[in-house]
Amino acid sequence: MSDKISGIFTPHMVPLDDQGRIDEAELRRYVDWLIEKGVHGLYPNGSTGEFIRFSPEERRLIVKIVCEQAAGRLPVLAGAAEANVRETVAACEAYAGFGARAVAIVSPFYYRLSPESVYAYFREIAQHSPIDVTLYNIPMFASPIDVPTIRRLAELERIVGIKDSSGDLAFMMRMIAAVRPMRPDFSFLTGWEAVLVPMLIVGADGGTHATSGVVPELTRMMYDLTRRNEIDQAMKLQFRLLELFDAMLYSADFPEGFRAAVELRGFAMGRSRQPLSSAQQVNRDHLQQILRCILADFGYVEPPPEGCPPRAPNLERHRVNQITSEVVEALRKRGML
Amino acid sequence: MSDKISGIFTPHMVPLDDQGRIDEAELRRYVDWLIEKGVHGLYPNGSTGEFIRFSPEERRLIVKIVCEQAAGRLPVLAGAAEANVRETVAACEAYAGFGARAVAIVSPFYYRLSPESVYAYFREIAQHSPIDVTLYNIPMFASPIDVPTIRRLAELERIVGIKDSSGDLAFMMRMIAAVRPMRPDFSFLTGWEAVLVPMLIVGADGGTHATSGVVPELTRMMYDLTRRNEIDQAMKLQFRLLELFDAMLYSADFPEGFRAAVELRGFAMGRSRQPLSSAQQVNRDHLQQILRCILADFGYVEPPPEGCPPRAPNLERHRVNQITSEVVEALRKRGML
Amino acid sequence: MSDKISGIFTPHMVPLDDQGRIDEAELRRYVDWLIEKGVHGLYPNGSTGEFIRFSPEERRLIVKIVCEQAAGRLPVLAGAAEANVRETVAACEAYAGFGARAVAIVSPFYYRLSPESVYAYFREIAQHSPIDVTLYNIPMFASPIDVPTIRRLAELERIVGIKDSSGDLAFMMRMIAAVRPMRPDFSFLTGWEAVLVPMLIVGADGGTHATSGVVPELTRMMYDLTRRNEIDQAMKLQFRLLELFDAMLYSADFPEGFRAAVELRGFAMGRSRQPLSSAQQVNRDHLQQILRCILADFGYVEPPPEGCPPRAPNLERHRVNQITSEVVEALRKRGML
Amino acid sequence: MSDKISGIFTPHMVPLDDQGRIDEAELRRYVDWLIEKGVHGLYPNGSTGEFIRFSPEERRLIVKIVCEQAAGRLPVLAGAAEANVRETVAACEAYAGFGARAVAIVSPFYYRLSPESVYAYFREIAQHSPIDVTLYNIPMFASPIDVPTIRRLAELERIVGIKDSSGDLAFMMRMIAAVRPMRPDFSFLTGWEAVLVPMLIVGADGGTHATSGVVPELTRMMYDLTRRNEIDQAMKLQFRLLELFDAMLYSADFPEGFRAAVELRGFAMGRSRQPLSSAQQVNRDHLQQILRCILADFGYVEPPPEGCPPRAPNLERHRVNQITSEVVEALRKRGML
Repeated sequence: MSDKISGIFTPHMVPLDDQGRIDEAELRRYVDWLIEKGVHGLYPNGSTGEFIRFSPEERRLIVKIVCEQAAGRLPVLAGAAEANVRETVAACEAYAGFGARAVAIVSPFYYRLSPESVYAYFREIAQHSPIDVTLYNIPMFASPIDVPTIRRLAELERIVGIKDSSGDLAFMMRMIAAVRPMRPDFSFLTGWEAVLVPMLIVGADGGTHATSGVVPELTRMMYDLTRRNEIDQAMKLQFRLLELFDAMLYSADFPEGFRAAVELRGFAMGRSRQPLSSAQQVNRDHLQQILRCILADFGYVEPPPEGCPPRAPNLERHRVNQITSEVVEALRKRGML
Repeated sequence: MSDKISGIFTPHMVPLDDQGRIDEAELRRYVDWLIEKGVHGLYPNGSTGEFIRFSPEERRLIVKIVCEQAAGRLPVLAGAAEANVRETVAACEAYAGFGARAVAIVSPFYYRLSPESVYAYFREIAQHSPIDVTLYNIPMFASPIDVPTIRRLAELERIVGIKDSSGDLAFMMRMIAAVRPMRPDFSFLTGWEAVLVPMLIVGADGGTHATSGVVPELTRMMYDLTRRNEIDQAMKLQFRLLELFDAMLYSADFPEGFRAAVELRGFAMGRSRQPLSSAQQVNRDHLQQILRCILADFGYVEPPPEGCPPRAPNLERHRVNQITSEVVEALRKRGML
Repeated sequence: MSDKISGIFTPHMVPLDDQGRIDEAELRRYVDWLIEKGVHGLYPNGSTGEFIRFSPEERRLIVKIVCEQAAGRLPVLAGAAEANVRETVAACEAYAGFGARAVAIVSPFYYRLSPESVYAYFREIAQHSPIDVTLYNIPMFASPIDVPTIRRLAELERIVGIKDSSGDLAFMMRMIAAVRPMRPDFSFLTGWEAVLVPMLIVGADGGTHATSGVVPELTRMMYDLTRRNEIDQAMKLQFRLLELFDAMLYSADFPEGFRAAVELRGFAMGRSRQPLSSAQQVNRDHLQQILRCILADFGYVEPPPEGCPPRAPNLERHRVNQITSEVVEALRKRGML
Repeated sequence: MSDKISGIFTPHMVPLDDQGRIDEAELRRYVDWLIEKGVHGLYPNGSTGEFIRFSPEERRLIVKIVCEQAAGRLPVLAGAAEANVRETVAACEAYAGFGARAVAIVSPFYYRLSPESVYAYFREIAQHSPIDVTLYNIPMFASPIDVPTIRRLAELERIVGIKDSSGDLAFMMRMIAAVRPMRPDFSFLTGWEAVLVPMLIVGADGGTHATSGVVPELTRMMYDLTRRNEIDQAMKLQFRLLELFDAMLYSADFPEGFRAAVELRGFAMGRSRQPLSSAQQVNRDHLQQILRCILADFGYVEPPPEGCPPRAPNLERHRVNQITSEVVEALRKRGML
């Protein structure tokens, strides 16, 4: 239980049935598939897993199912943030009982708290948790955890690592420089797969990547190649992953693009609990066609029967804008706008 | 029940006992006091009320207590955001049963959603809610609701108003210009009491102000003066309220400064569910001394026995910085840093 | 020369001839027109005046022309920021010689400087300037000047006011609360005409508004009505000005929308020194049609021969987005995207 | 002259004499030293070189001196942004005459322009420039240049590269993916030396680094090691450079920390044109002591006679904060605050 947390952990999504409930059978099938495809660990109740859209009871059920299905084949890092410290600690206790390796606790969100409050929050959790705790820094969504605060928190034995989703390599290096000398066992995970290979090169121990729930073979291969120091080959895959990542991330509100992609791998994910407008549903269908073509390039799925158009990286948005503004202008001239 | 929502609604805090549980008796006493002091409505489960730090069951209990205690003496606007649409609608049903006038739903938070997603979210809630819905825009903490989206949502009869906490007067005017012609019954409430009087002048129907939980007499007086067109007098109070507001807002992580102030009015609020470090506790004690002096100026509390120092607006921070940097420098020279 | 700076100052644009040079005759004609229409002062070399796109020699020429043409009929507040303190002081000397009432110095831009650096910068200028200095706070474009820094700078007699373009009413009130008690002669001007009337109500002495270069009659009327305490009437105009302001500000990169509007008032402004793409030129033509209709509503210009469509405030963008996304989708289906 | 721009270019500072004028002799001596220490190119009039604080005539003089002194020993990339397109093109012509390899043009600053305006601006310059142009993207200070815009601009032969100071590796990869296939000669330079080695690994051709003006031996060594695929060794230096970089960047307003460091290498840089307050001067002296110790670790300078304290990375700020808050509290208790 005291191994350093490392490798690729999948912050997986949760399949829902047509009533919007957790689809336990499909979740178990998905867990098996991820393990089979080579991920190093599982991470239920992450941001990708839409933890905030489930009830506290559902969050527990998700971790229970995942721990059971993993059955010791790989470690589980369970998202355990609840409404307050007391309930978070209760979740930690439950997840320890389910056999999780550690919990991940996102920094306080909604309110933007000061570093001192962030420190006080994690310290109190660490003092009461019966299971190892990893910090989760995602400044885009939650109160940022700065380097001095990480350093102070690393003085607590119960805190064993941090997942950082900023994507900032210099920040990763600053954390490592501040903490590793005193805590060689402290684990640094990146949540930004767009730069997975560079992050590993500068010293990260692994990552928790939404993309690994879509193409677990690919992220595993990138990890292995980098560890074997085959950087050129790893970087080639990094560029190809970036195209996939950008398509999933920027074409729909997170994490809907990832849900659309997981479906292409053969899992029935169900409708998101965040409703889609009809315009968004149309865009999602279009996105799925694009994703199918990208995934087909890797050989992970069949290409669409009608074939795929040639892709020019990053240009689509530009052309869309151009054509759109021409069309709008045409409509205006006709008084339709 | 179909009156336009207007006036000052108090997004009140929730007293906790020494076990950290809701202190029902103190909450009822606080509700009575607020009503007696003249607030126009109550707003449980707002940001000030730390809705996110309570469990779903506690949130319901809070609304139930408040509705019971209000007993029809004034309308209750109940914060009803839950983990997803289905649970939010269930809360709406419960709060309708408790006798709330309407619910307030904060825009989706944690994830930053696009306008289209914000629209889809509120539309689905509005379609299923048995009780009037007000939108809650707080771009500092949650996905922003832009003017075109507000305009689209105002086409739904069930949506009867918006609370905006941006503090941006031009934004308030844009909302009013876009919606009022088609929906004269639609209510515009500001959540930024720093500019309450100007907001009323440009057309807001009222506000939901954390400060009204501290000095309900004052915010009521400002409202009444403005409505009677005694702008000069109202603005004098606005300047005095600004000093109090800034002290509560910027001297501690929100809403701890407001908790410290409510205590001075004679209510036992208990320790926040967000832990304070020892340094923060010291700062809080100091803040409370400052707040006591400000509140004593209004005659709302007794001044401290040792008296109050003369206050120079906005200068304290400057002097603190100056002296601090001199002290730090002195310590450095002696090798203590 | 020691009167408090107050009223509406126009940060006017500079007409260019077809070689892109300053069109002196047209500038003089424009100055005369602004004076005739009732502005209280002129403000050459502001952000609206694109000071940064002129050479140092041209900036001096502009101030010289404006001071000459004003000929004492109203005060001139001359933008004097140059590459560094020494050259800024030299400009101050020149503008004093031209007869300017005061200079306006924008906070250091490009680099984002700390409050301490902002203070040191303005202090050094104030110590050497032979002419009164007003601070210019535009946090959107330049290093912010915070309240404690304004308070420190207000200790220098040479500094006589501040123009703030943040549009934040609470910030205006904080400045006034911090400075007015010790410096009743210190002038507070707002640069955000979207909230001109509320700013005057909370205590601002006036404003420097790009819009006053387009509709000087209107901003003057708003000022006079507010000063006469006819708030309802002033606010009606404020709402109408907001529509015009938003159209000029958000439909093109600043200040191109204002240039397009000034042309409608009968001045040949010439092409901007910031090139426009052909798509932008098309949008500008369309914007000008919209502006013509808004200005015609006020009776300031003739409506277009083909008449104006009915306007629904704030809805156009929404409809454009909706139709655009439908069109794009249609094109996609046909493989054109 | 048509070689691809690659390697480490130094955006050097400009020594000033005690009258604040350009110190030509010291600048020539500095140029010689940089060349001798192995930088691949020189970059006058960059952000580090405080281009904006010099007059147009001074900017030209700087490039003239640097080109003369370089005398063909290495390429010069001359910052050429002036007040508008016409004057920028005139500078391009002058710098071509001086023998510069190319010019670097920062994206329009002060105003935040749209991508379409950024495109129009660079296109017009490229159409008229007699010398190769590199784009300069520094979103912290100037209008951002997004990937589709870079792609469009790369269609113009005259534009031969981009310097990006965002420090975002994924952005670098997106640029490379979008442009390199069609323009293999297009040069990608990073301006963020905190991640120089990772940037080279993902495909950057080199960098323009303020730090290379302080420790040119070090940045050159990092470049050479990375090119020889000795990544482990390069990363060890990257971590050490990060400490130096952070100390220079975050301890004073940019670029004052770099000026303090260059002085330690033996050059008389003179006082900045941005004035320092007395408090800032004290901080600068303290910073210089820290920098001396870091540089002494590399063997580049002598350690101070009193020796250096042990350094704990990233902790100083934390300790300063802690002690400061204790001290402030003590002063408060005694009524001194």
